[in-house]
Amino acid sequence: MSMNSYGHLFRVTTWGESHGPALGATVDGCPPGVPIDEAMIQHWLDRRKPGQSKFTTQRREPDAVKILSGVFEGQTTGTPVQLMIENTDQRSKDYGDIVDKFRPGHADITYWQKYGIRDYRGGGRSSARETAARVAAGGLAREAIKALAPDVEITGYMVQMGPHRIDRNRFDRAQIEQNPFWVPDAQAAGDWAAYLDDLRKSGNSVGAVVEVVARGVPAGLGAPVYAKLDTDLAAAMMSINAVKGVEIGEGMAAAELTGEANADEIFMGPDGPRYSSNHAGGILGGISTGQDIVVRFAVKPTSSILTPRRTITKSGQETEIVTKGRHDPCVGIRAVPVGEAMMACVILDHLLLHRGQIGENRGRIG
Amino acid sequence: MSMNSYGHLFRVTTWGESHGPALGATVDGCPPGVPIDEAMIQHWLDRRKPGQSKFTTQRREPDAVKILSGVFEGQTTGTPVQLMIENTDQRSKDYGDIVDKFRPGHADITYWQKYGIRDYRGGGRSSARETAARVAAGGLAREAIKALAPDVEITGYMVQMGPHRIDRNRFDRAQIEQNPFWVPDAQAAGDWAAYLDDLRKSGNSVGAVVEVVARGVPAGLGAPVYAKLDTDLAAAMMSINAVKGVEIGEGMAAAELTGEANADEIFMGPDGPRYSSNHAGGILGGISTGQDIVVRFAVKPTSSILTPRRTITKSGQETEIVTKGRHDPCVGIRAVPVGEAMMACVILDHLLLHRGQIGENRGRIG
Amino acid sequence: MSMNSYGHLFRVTTWGESHGPALGATVDGCPPGVPIDEAMIQHWLDRRKPGQSKFTTQRREPDAVKILSGVFEGQTTGTPVQLMIENTDQRSKDYGDIVDKFRPGHADITYWQKYGIRDYRGGGRSSARETAARVAAGGLAREAIKALAPDVEITGYMVQMGPHRIDRNRFDRAQIEQNPFWVPDAQAAGDWAAYLDDLRKSGNSVGAVVEVVARGVPAGLGAPVYAKLDTDLAAAMMSINAVKGVEIGEGMAAAELTGEANADEIFMGPDGPRYSSNHAGGILGGISTGQDIVVRFAVKPTSSILTPRRTITKSGQETEIVTKGRHDPCVGIRAVPVGEAMMACVILDHLLLHRGQIGENRGRIG
Amino acid sequence: MSMNSYGHLFRVTTWGESHGPALGATVDGCPPGVPIDEAMIQHWLDRRKPGQSKFTTQRREPDAVKILSGVFEGQTTGTPVQLMIENTDQRSKDYGDIVDKFRPGHADITYWQKYGIRDYRGGGRSSARETAARVAAGGLAREAIKALAPDVEITGYMVQMGPHRIDRNRFDRAQIEQNPFWVPDAQAAGDWAAYLDDLRKSGNSVGAVVEVVARGVPAGLGAPVYAKLDTDLAAAMMSINAVKGVEIGEGMAAAELTGEANADEIFMGPDGPRYSSNHAGGILGGISTGQDIVVRFAVKPTSSILTPRRTITKSGQETEIVTKGRHDPCVGIRAVPVGEAMMACVILDHLLLHRGQIGENRGRIG
Repeated sequence: MSMNSYGHLFRVTTWGESHGPALGATVDGCPPGVPIDEAMIQHWLDRRKPGQSKFTTQRREPDAVKILSGVFEGQTTGTPVQLMIENTDQRSKDYGDIVDKFRPGHADITYWQKYGIRDYRGGGRSSARETAARVAAGGLAREAIKALAPDVEITGYMVQMGPHRIDRNRFDRAQIEQNPFWVPDAQAAGDWAAYLDDLRKSGNSVGAVVEVVARGVPAGLGAPVYAKLDTDLAAAMMSINAVKGVEIGEGMAAAELTGEANADEIFMGPDGPRYSSNHAGGILGGISTGQDIVVRFAVKPTSSILTPRRTITKSGQETEIVTKGRHDPCVGIRAVPVGEAMMACVILDHLLLHRGQIGENRGRIG
Repeated sequence: MSMNSYGHLFRVTTWGESHGPALGATVDGCPPGVPIDEAMIQHWLDRRKPGQSKFTTQRREPDAVKILSGVFEGQTTGTPVQLMIENTDQRSKDYGDIVDKFRPGHADITYWQKYGIRDYRGGGRSSARETAARVAAGGLAREAIKALAPDVEITGYMVQMGPHRIDRNRFDRAQIEQNPFWVPDAQAAGDWAAYLDDLRKSGNSVGAVVEVVARGVPAGLGAPVYAKLDTDLAAAMMSINAVKGVEIGEGMAAAELTGEANADEIFMGPDGPRYSSNHAGGILGGISTGQDIVVRFAVKPTSSILTPRRTITKSGQETEIVTKGRHDPCVGIRAVPVGEAMMACVILDHLLLHRGQIGENRGRIG
Repeated sequence: MSMNSYGHLFRVTTWGESHGPALGATVDGCPPGVPIDEAMIQHWLDRRKPGQSKFTTQRREPDAVKILSGVFEGQTTGTPVQLMIENTDQRSKDYGDIVDKFRPGHADITYWQKYGIRDYRGGGRSSARETAARVAAGGLAREAIKALAPDVEITGYMVQMGPHRIDRNRFDRAQIEQNPFWVPDAQAAGDWAAYLDDLRKSGNSVGAVVEVVARGVPAGLGAPVYAKLDTDLAAAMMSINAVKGVEIGEGMAAAELTGEANADEIFMGPDGPRYSSNHAGGILGGISTGQDIVVRFAVKPTSSILTPRRTITKSGQETEIVTKGRHDPCVGIRAVPVGEAMMACVILDHLLLHRGQIGENRGRIG
Repeated sequence: MSMNSYGHLFRVTTWGESHGPALGATVDGCPPGVPIDEAMIQHWLDRRKPGQSKFTTQRREPDAVKILSGVFEGQTTGTPVQLMIENTDQRSKDYGDIVDKFRPGHADITYWQKYGIRDYRGGGRSSARETAARVAAGGLAREAIKALAPDVEITGYMVQMGPHRIDRNRFDRAQIEQNPFWVPDAQAAGDWAAYLDDLRKSGNSVGAVVEVVARGVPAGLGAPVYAKLDTDLAAAMMSINAVKGVEIGEGMAAAELTGEANADEIFMGPDGPRYSSNHAGGILGGISTGQDIVVRFAVKPTSSILTPRRTITKSGQETEIVTKGRHDPCVGIRAVPVGEAMMACVILDHLLLHRGQIGENRGRIG
């Protein structure tokens, strides 16, 4: 059992903190023979990298990944893959004035209460920089999935920023890569830019909802009762910094439906079952149906804002704080590639787990 | 690694299916010396038991728990506790006409696709009867918590049924035990009874939202990054049958807030930090703050309804199905004690985990 | 993580104590579709059953196994299999005079020091009765192996009792089932009977060495570095009650060899590599070579003897003890089927683990 | 579950291969507040470092450890500690002529059969260089133990090299650091030097037995049934490269004893139980008694020798091989600090596990 690991067979352990020499992911259980090199992983890290638009933190990290083990002559060997990212732009002095103050909404106070150690430099282990390691691991997972389930396609995007939601009627997958918000709605992209720019200038921040969809996932993945596919996805997404809610398919809105309205009726298609709808988000009883796996998660607004907030110090003195560092006005944006990475890791893990217990899919229909 | 287990140190493995001879929970890692007997666990099982009002399934199971191991002279010994519940009212013939048909919204089709085995009797392992084992384990967890954190108090209740939400201004904890819905709002209890009775008579069903609150949890519980308290709670709740969404504190609504609005400002109280609000739901960076832990989850409507739905058979024939068994019109009701049980297990587990790594709380404030 | 479980994917959790109502094994991760019934498991339990000759304890337990879950219409479903054995012949009063005394060589004192609970009835959880649950799980594992690696054949036997070793030149596998010691040497069987009978009459006991061999195990099983096949076998055998040493291949004697003498030279046979010898015991670098897997373990003499021994009570008083219960003069005898069962569980587990990470064997020779 | 990890709460994952850029250990679950720096860990690595006498490989690796995470201002933070050792002296061309040949006794053939990938450079992941990472983790474990059980003292030494055993009557702990064999017997040290020098010159090698003793371990550590202290020690030691047997206390010789001879009688000492002997090696029923924990393991002779041996190539051709690299004539020597490190990790892990489930020792005697 490790508190910094996830996955059953494809097992990722992340390590490192915001302002240490490096951070990374120790990845165990990857199948051998997966073609991989640093550039293939770097591709995904670059999507998450800060400082790419005015809407993300101006911290400038190259986030260059190094593969230290587990790869030989361009292929995974089946032994642990160590993915390391060195920290370079660590302006620890930016944090000098918060050495003794707890930033509200951050983990400063709880890490102190738990460990009695205060690594004030950028949040230490609780920093969202940790998610770079997940994205690196996710890049490897994507390549490994190709050999096992070549039709799998994983796409994340924003569907809500503050009070503004996308219009599902304007949903256009091609838009996702065309704007700094990975939003599949061109009009929303424009509206949100203006909205967020105002917030950013006023030193405020806002929350968001990210949706991640996996297409082409074979039916039969997921291991009830406590390694359900949705259970593992919920844990994977909830473990991302600042996430406060996770939904599968209808999610919280399922509460409002009747059984009649919620039923995904089943028909027979040319190569297997087809469904009238996907309220279930591609998962029944914790096992994939073959439909799109649909997950959403809510990211709270960045807690570092310029408005002074009341807080206390380690010695219990009441005081005020203004967090001046370089921060994201909507940290949800950069959570998109992280959510994709977690989806990739969970799906690969369950492909392996299913193959381990069962071999190939067993139950044929028709 | 076990796919039917949860918890790190307090480790619960459930087993059994709807219509087998018995089901139960194998509980490992319980501290020794916890006073326990069958009656203390039965108390919690009785709250979940079906057939207590017209709003729950008319299946009549005594759900009598037997302790087969791990308890000697009224105390846990520190070795595995086996909690067994025999199945008695298994009308398997009720399911005869669905031997070959997959019920939409149920796990029939995915279990078949995964395992190639069709235990058609009441859903087999995917039946919500499995949650009886969790409630039994939760009863033991509650007793073990008392020695470690005597102030902990865990309460679950419904906050939404279909489109009807409680009025938080009428919130009255004393009402929870006064109505069949565990709803802390007397007026809602009355309205919902009428609403659900109509649905029930028409053979339809509806979803719900359950909220579970843990008071008195000490600060410092939770083990970042992938054993965060909220991560483990999300997994615990999502693993409950029919759950489609999980929220901590503000949950999905956090997306709509600005950083200014979302800040829980910190003050110094007589015996530790105090907060201006609890948007965080008692958890920051995956670690408890000492505030109330607030979790909500959405339960989809029961999929077994009297309205005919389109489906297919194992051989791929299209057909219709009406699920005539004895079912709950709002399965969310019986999810309340299950959510409480999962909360109890997660909190006990983290109390032990924290004590293992750290001993007592280390970081003092003031 | 569970302290009462073993295996990675084929995960066995045993529960129960010597004089509780029942004991058993909760088996998770078994492949679906394995043909199994109670009689098939009972077959293996009957081999371990006490009271079959004058050389084993006269406690008379039918050790009848019940399958409570995970099997439907004669096949495993892929969900947890609960194997329960009820205790029937629990003469707890036999233990009345040791309620406060610690039996030397038993776990009485350490369980007390660890848990502060004294279940004096036959050793409670530390009783070798727990191994019945392993044998039941092993019976299931054997059936599951058949579908995955049909050539696997697992055989255990005694090679040493006290100072008496078998003569490898007289090794005759057919003898194993012909004597109460499972010894593959007819002459030894006769000699040992006389030797042990004397010891038994004098109320003394003696140790033994058991060897377990698995033939037909495919090359490539084992997952370095800490899930090596030999690592898992060492843990599996050392976890058996009273075991004090475990050897693979040459075992401790490997220390005496030179590199020249120890080399298992490799040749090419008609259907794969062949070796000049098997000093390695079928495992190199933690991975199976395809040769026989050879494991030996030493079982200490039964600690319950009629000779008075010095000991202390819970209150620290010095005293003497004579253990009068019904005990085995050579507990190593009944360890034979237990060692076989552990071998079966470990091999099945690694078959699944290998298939999970890698699929089929990948590296072909020639 | 990770195949490259060990420990329950103090969880060590090693990564890296012989000729990659680096190798290391990702250590999770370390208590916070442990004083540590690179020099303190380097101390232990230097003991294992090759090239220190003519009796170990002449590969010259500084084996300089870097702490990349988990330590702040000289103390552990409670988050993962990454310990990295860069490889510098990788003469991969030494291995050029074995690209296609499998070295007998090495894992070359089994890694190929498992993974279908042949990292021929010095054994890749199966190289004993991996043990450097364990020694680094063990150095951290030793410091963490100090706060929890300050009396613990861990010492490893050789007791046998080839056919030559130490004379227990000459046992002198002070000698251990005075000779290149860590042998507690001055006369043996001299004899062995001459013996091994001859073997080395002839290009041969020999096996060894290492004993590791932990003094001052509190009673009550170990978690039956499958996380027994001896089970975990057996797994820890068997996972070390080239180990073929593991013994606790009497070990394999326990088979020869009668119950009368094997009994460790119990007396009451001034501060707790005292024993007449320690046949049990400090462990009863998997739980520590407070006596010395005594473990021995046999290391087979180095398989790389200058005598030509028969083998095959990847394409199945029969051929001969002479392994010319820089190798240890008795790899058992360098296994001494590795065995100590594994002991330290296991004991720390069980200190945390015990504290997690139980708090402090519960059962008082007297």
